[in-house]
Amino acid sequence: MAKAPVLTPQADDFPRWYQDLISKAELADNGPVRGSMVIRPYGYGLWERMQAELDARIKETGTENAYFPLLIPQSYLTREADHVEGFAPELAVVTHGGGKELEEPAVVRPTSETIVNEYFSKWVQSYRDLPLLINQWANVVRWELRPRLFLRTSEFLWQEGHTAHATYEEARDFAARIQREVYGDFLENVLAVDFVSGRKTAKERFAGAVNTLTLESMMGDGKALQMVTSHELGQNFAKAFNTRYLSKEGAQELVWQTSWGSTTRMIGALVMMHGDDDGLRVPPRLAHIQVVVLAIKGDEAVLAKVRELGARLKAAGLRVRVDDRTDVPFGRRAVDWELKGVPVRVEIGPRDLENGTAMLARRIPGGKEPVAIDALESLLPGVLEEDQALLLKQSRERRESRTADVSTIEEAAEAAAAGGWARVPWAALGEEGEARLAEQSLTVRCLIAEDGSVPDDGDAPGNLAVVARAY
Amino acid sequence: MAKAPVLTPQADDFPRWYQDLISKAELADNGPVRGSMVIRPYGYGLWERMQAELDARIKETGTENAYFPLLIPQSYLTREADHVEGFAPELAVVTHGGGKELEEPAVVRPTSETIVNEYFSKWVQSYRDLPLLINQWANVVRWELRPRLFLRTSEFLWQEGHTAHATYEEARDFAARIQREVYGDFLENVLAVDFVSGRKTAKERFAGAVNTLTLESMMGDGKALQMVTSHELGQNFAKAFNTRYLSKEGAQELVWQTSWGSTTRMIGALVMMHGDDDGLRVPPRLAHIQVVVLAIKGDEAVLAKVRELGARLKAAGLRVRVDDRTDVPFGRRAVDWELKGVPVRVEIGPRDLENGTAMLARRIPGGKEPVAIDALESLLPGVLEEDQALLLKQSRERRESRTADVSTIEEAAEAAAAGGWARVPWAALGEEGEARLAEQSLTVRCLIAEDGSVPDDGDAPGNLAVVARAY
Repeated sequence: MAKAPVLTPQADDFPRWYQDLISKAELADNGPVRGSMVIRPYGYGLWERMQAELDARIKETGTENAYFPLLIPQSYLTREADHVEGFAPELAVVTHGGGKELEEPAVVRPTSETIVNEYFSKWVQSYRDLPLLINQWANVVRWELRPRLFLRTSEFLWQEGHTAHATYEEARDFAARIQREVYGDFLENVLAVDFVSGRKTAKERFAGAVNTLTLESMMGDGKALQMVTSHELGQNFAKAFNTRYLSKEGAQELVWQTSWGSTTRMIGALVMMHGDDDGLRVPPRLAHIQVVVLAIKGDEAVLAKVRELGARLKAAGLRVRVDDRTDVPFGRRAVDWELKGVPVRVEIGPRDLENGTAMLARRIPGGKEPVAIDALESLLPGVLEEDQALLLKQSRERRESRTADVSTIEEAAEAAAAGGWARVPWAALGEEGEARLAEQSLTVRCLIAEDGSVPDDGDAPGNLAVVARAY
Repeated sequence: MAKAPVLTPQADDFPRWYQDLISKAELADNGPVRGSMVIRPYGYGLWERMQAELDARIKETGTENAYFPLLIPQSYLTREADHVEGFAPELAVVTHGGGKELEEPAVVRPTSETIVNEYFSKWVQSYRDLPLLINQWANVVRWELRPRLFLRTSEFLWQEGHTAHATYEEARDFAARIQREVYGDFLENVLAVDFVSGRKTAKERFAGAVNTLTLESMMGDGKALQMVTSHELGQNFAKAFNTRYLSKEGAQELVWQTSWGSTTRMIGALVMMHGDDDGLRVPPRLAHIQVVVLAIKGDEAVLAKVRELGARLKAAGLRVRVDDRTDVPFGRRAVDWELKGVPVRVEIGPRDLENGTAMLARRIPGGKEPVAIDALESLLPGVLEEDQALLLKQSRERRESRTADVSTIEEAAEAAAAGGWARVPWAALGEEGEARLAEQSLTVRCLIAEDGSVPDDGDAPGNLAVVARAY
């Protein structure tokens, strides 16, 4: 007998499948103010692990965490012309505080380049103070007209890095290092997410940047999602805020800067990248619950065994949850853990106990088999690593098999309509071609060099444009 | 030759000493919007360690982290009468979003009881969903007319716990457990901060609570600081938001709730509790830098040795910073680490190297002595634990020696004027006496039972009021 589907099948309606999953796996709810969201404990658990893994990599680069205020004087935003033009339509504005109208309205930060530079200009005195490498974990608000949970929300959580360097080259290299050693390494080795690493076209650049690097991934429906970005800000904000340093030679020089961010959007990416019709599949290295040990029935011996096994697996260094809520039917709990995408379920009932076995259910490849309970400690770490690798392989194969090399706008549109990406020579496209793609809701996700690397020059001959419909 | 003081001496002007220290130890700067602050990397490093230690204890109680929106519809606040009365004067209000005036203004959360209950009322269906134990790490905004860095800021960072229980007793016991096992244990064993644990009078209760538990500590100038609070909310918010559950007996019942919080104010407390005229003294168990290894001169052999020793101490599990910035004079760097309160400095110059020794400077008891470099790995863990214990002892002795048992309001005022606290029988004081104390800027910090425990009944005979001038 076939099970009734718990979620709208992906093939029927991918956006609806996404919403169903977010709701039924208890990742998030819509908030009361338009476009806001409540991140529920299971969803937040994923974010906490993302934070821990990213934070360790960020600190490895010598960057330190700090915290800048939520509220920014409106006048700060206007000091960098491109920046205010980009963000003005998305601002939330505080006009009243402590029962009075404010003399100057304050905006809720949409990003912090301006307020960061106000302080960098005080903290940076001489070349000895450089590089200044700062990161913050914070919430930001950008008013969204077409919100979607995790992907586009009026408030989201993120980390934003802000750095100041003595030379153009140092800043450029640091932005690239973040892209590669922090974001690239994290996506590939923790989220098991394949990506293309490239640079944005002028049209798609961050408001105020001179160059934006991006990692773009292909979701389950073939659309693209911008995962993270890293910007070279040149001296734009340094000029606007007069952020200068005394060089070794005794001259007052403007600093060169970068900024870079990654957000709760990655939770949405995880869903659309690894989810299937049964729910989410969480990469084991990310999972805050890697193994759930389930008591099938409320039998005393069974309960004792799942608790003891849970403790044993925890002691072996695995992240384990014991599910002994036997007042809820076993089938409902199994479906729930499947929805939540916990990589491995270990199910134990009275009969299993007699045989000294448990049913081992692997969420990622699927399937169940009996294994000796005493073998689990030594077995599971290998199982989890195998399943981690499988997710990355599936992610990579999807993009490779669905990307077409084409030479015209029409062919690129066809590839996108068929649920894929196109690589088109940038020379054949150019800004005019980019504008024509936009009429068909297609965008250049990024430019890559002929050999697949990130080009130093966007207009270098041989550059390819990666074209896709995007979230 | 006496050094010129780096800070205004405590005895001359305690508030100014505090401001000097915050600024010179690079803990925080004033933000541009009134009452806001920028937490600098060294200050934020203290907060990150507080978060890690508190978070582990919070999770130990079975509480999970989640995230609720920053912006709350204004109408939510008004549903609980005491709550809105308490918070209305402190609200920051967003009236415009995305370039338009909002239909309903949104307040920037001053605390999240209302929005949490909106969702609890959806998530809680039956007794099986209880207890529901949620915590969030977030920023909140409460407009401050007389701001002071860390102690009273318009925006601060905190954790706020929110729980729902089936019975009054469970909620009461959970609030008390948080007070004892999370906050009390953390303050005593990590921050090395002595406190009195008691209950607030009706006047000092959280807006919307039926009982507030508090931990109060004596600062270096004898004034009191409320460190953390834990509230029994009764059914006040459950009624306002109709948060009900189906009981085992099949009846729809209102839940019983708690909320509890700890904030970046604890950084200010740390300064005023352990700081001295040379700067901060960070308890070793908290310190994100426990040991700094300093190269006195830019000699190659010295630099190689401090780096090797730094790596060795790190490998031994200590939190270590290597200071090899020999383009900055040694004396300036030593004073800077002293200001920042790093517990142990290990200083190595060419002459030390010849002898195989280093100078070991201990910030907490003070003093310097030469020790064999190879002995440091085995020596330092014990030194750090010893100094941790000394800080707690000093903290406790200060409060005990400066607390007077008195019987009248006049005597209590005298004790406060002399830079201390008074214990007064609550029966002799009462709400009328409390009002008279307020005229002299004195408050009842909390009520304690005769045996020093937290009284279940504020008006029980024998209860003592702890009276002090407070921050």
